[in-house]
Amino acid sequence: MTAPLVEFIVTGDEVMRGTIADTNTQFIAQRLYPLGLTLRRTTVVGDRSEDIRGALLETGSRADFCVVSGGLGPTSDDLTAACAAEAASVPMRRDRVWLDHLRRRWAARRSEPMPANNERQADVPETAEVLGNPDGSAPAFALRIGRCLFFFLPGVPREYRRIVEELVLPRLLQATGASVLRMRVLQCYGVTESRLDELVSSIRDGHPEVRFGFRTKFPENHLSLVALAADAATAEANLARVEAECREALAGYLYGSDGVTFAQAVGQELAARGETICCAESCTGGLLDDLLTEAPGSSAWAAGGFVTYSNELKERALGVPRDLIDRYGAVSEPVALAMAEGARARSGTSWALAITGIAGPSGGTPEKPVGTVWLALAGRDGARSRSAFYRGDRGQIRLQSAYGALQLLREALGHRVRSS
Amino acid sequence: MTAPLVEFIVTGDEVMRGTIADTNTQFIAQRLYPLGLTLRRTTVVGDRSEDIRGALLETGSRADFCVVSGGLGPTSDDLTAACAAEAASVPMRRDRVWLDHLRRRWAARRSEPMPANNERQADVPETAEVLGNPDGSAPAFALRIGRCLFFFLPGVPREYRRIVEELVLPRLLQATGASVLRMRVLQCYGVTESRLDELVSSIRDGHPEVRFGFRTKFPENHLSLVALAADAATAEANLARVEAECREALAGYLYGSDGVTFAQAVGQELAARGETICCAESCTGGLLDDLLTEAPGSSAWAAGGFVTYSNELKERALGVPRDLIDRYGAVSEPVALAMAEGARARSGTSWALAITGIAGPSGGTPEKPVGTVWLALAGRDGARSRSAFYRGDRGQIRLQSAYGALQLLREALGHRVRSS
Repeated sequence: MTAPLVEFIVTGDEVMRGTIADTNTQFIAQRLYPLGLTLRRTTVVGDRSEDIRGALLETGSRADFCVVSGGLGPTSDDLTAACAAEAASVPMRRDRVWLDHLRRRWAARRSEPMPANNERQADVPETAEVLGNPDGSAPAFALRIGRCLFFFLPGVPREYRRIVEELVLPRLLQATGASVLRMRVLQCYGVTESRLDELVSSIRDGHPEVRFGFRTKFPENHLSLVALAADAATAEANLARVEAECREALAGYLYGSDGVTFAQAVGQELAARGETICCAESCTGGLLDDLLTEAPGSSAWAAGGFVTYSNELKERALGVPRDLIDRYGAVSEPVALAMAEGARARSGTSWALAITGIAGPSGGTPEKPVGTVWLALAGRDGARSRSAFYRGDRGQIRLQSAYGALQLLREALGHRVRSS
Repeated sequence: MTAPLVEFIVTGDEVMRGTIADTNTQFIAQRLYPLGLTLRRTTVVGDRSEDIRGALLETGSRADFCVVSGGLGPTSDDLTAACAAEAASVPMRRDRVWLDHLRRRWAARRSEPMPANNERQADVPETAEVLGNPDGSAPAFALRIGRCLFFFLPGVPREYRRIVEELVLPRLLQATGASVLRMRVLQCYGVTESRLDELVSSIRDGHPEVRFGFRTKFPENHLSLVALAADAATAEANLARVEAECREALAGYLYGSDGVTFAQAVGQELAARGETICCAESCTGGLLDDLLTEAPGSSAWAAGGFVTYSNELKERALGVPRDLIDRYGAVSEPVALAMAEGARARSGTSWALAITGIAGPSGGTPEKPVGTVWLALAGRDGARSRSAFYRGDRGQIRLQSAYGALQLLREALGHRVRSS
């Protein structure tokens, strides 16, 4: 069968004025692509009836499916439901089931009766099928306009995302001829997107039953595997077979799957070993600590650290000898090692990571250009160090430095690590 | 005169697949809005000739101006220039001036002659006016299709943004009847958007010659003032008058203007006084240090700090007495004060800021729910502290905590500070 033609419409003056960025397009595009359903067009219009109606009629004459986000709330600039009714040439009706739901929802939260104008939230076009909304009072609904089946959703990202996942994607999945989807995201570090592609290309060619997708989340690269099938057992078996082959091909780059962060993956491993980590950071200015502690529960492995941006603080807080800094410079192997050892001695943690480098844009010299970084790791059995050179702007150099330090720790924990 | 109807078109498979988020729409929307030119519609299509051509023809029959981003590069999926020529029913031509520019650009960088297929980058529709590209090899151009004047731009954000600012906006500005624009962004902290609106509403009503815009950059709120006029002196005088009134109305909330960050504003003030700062962070895990050091040149004021996530590190690195933690808890006024004093004593800086709190999602208790934070500041003349309660998710609580600490320092530096 030919893939159905899917479009997306976003409404809202705040997007057209640039007050907010539309993130709903990327969300649904990322969810549709693995189903083999590429978005064909996205249309963004403001809160004007004629523009919304125009977009609905044009798309209705062209697409098989369309998702619409925004304009379903209770305020005067929420016009989408009324425009949908006009485009479908049907009147509005008050949905009894949703109205009861609204009254129960209200009663569970407040003692006074629900104001009459809140009942408006149960108004939908007469021929609409109410889909609901697990997190809010404006119901999503499906409605046919022209040749196209539209799904109307609230624009609030939290409500929108859940409705897409739970109520819209299963319907679109059916349209592809499959009924079950299983997905895995394999997260890699230390490999470029083109090398990743190359490493798995023969596996992809041998398994047309699984779709491969790539996504860059600097400095990581992710591979997504999607198995579509008529039943769960087939989808799971297909996915498991291909995943095992990919895991083998990506060994040394693959650090985790399905949303764990790089720092979290390292941290969880430390926690399992009953070990802890502390950081001594110069050019990264707290970024490594921030990555290590941004996950809930990180207090199990992350003790914290020292941000010794100035040379004086390197000396005072970490005991880095002043003559070491004078002799080799703050960005040097001896200073990185002394920072790591000083941090570990002062914190009493199992491990300590140190970063000292030149993140730019100024501060570079011919011998130590912007991007020069020294990394060090101190542990029970001594310390190790590594020099690195990173390209990019200040933020990119800082991020790569933090990743490089975590990678040094992963190696010490026994991971095989490849360089691409 | 009626405002011209302006649209925007984005092309690119990577947007339709969700591989990248389109940021070009928000950029131009934000730039157009202060000119009184609201985007009427944005259309996003993939790299298919028929879809690009279709979008150009539809917009060409509807809009006065349209900016198009993407598809001007040298690769096989860069189809926009050819589609533009087809939509305008003109052949392509090789632009001699741009070709010479390409050859000079190539010669300045490499010794071998420019390959013939690079000449394609000088191909534009016959009736196009070449606008150029200060940062790249694909030239932007203007072309009339139907009733609409199109501006075709490369999609790479860095190139795109500069061309919008320098080559497109001045042309669109003329279309508004004005010829000069002067703009100021006043950046506020500690005030909600609605309160900000209220504070300046009478000024706005009294000065229709200046446009007011609001933008939230959590936890900050910004007010933009735009003066359009026929000549620079008038635009500048109008802007200066309104800016002075707004500065007075916003005193106590206004911390800076035109892109300085909150941390930078505080840091620059410290640098001017010859003072330095160090941080002792618990729940923020390095975020405050990261904010203070993300700006180039921050080594003049930021010494670094201590991320004492664990109680043990609070004791070891900062000398917080263990019995203080046992008696009052890690999130308490005495511990916050001891952290600040310990950090200042160990770093030798003029000031030290401390943050200890519960960022969630777990860790809250009935007495100290998630969002409870203690802030402290130590200086030459002793220490001060403040308790705060922040709402939001973990990231929002961490960010507000870091801002709260910086605000405590601003007060100590003598700023009048209002609470909204």
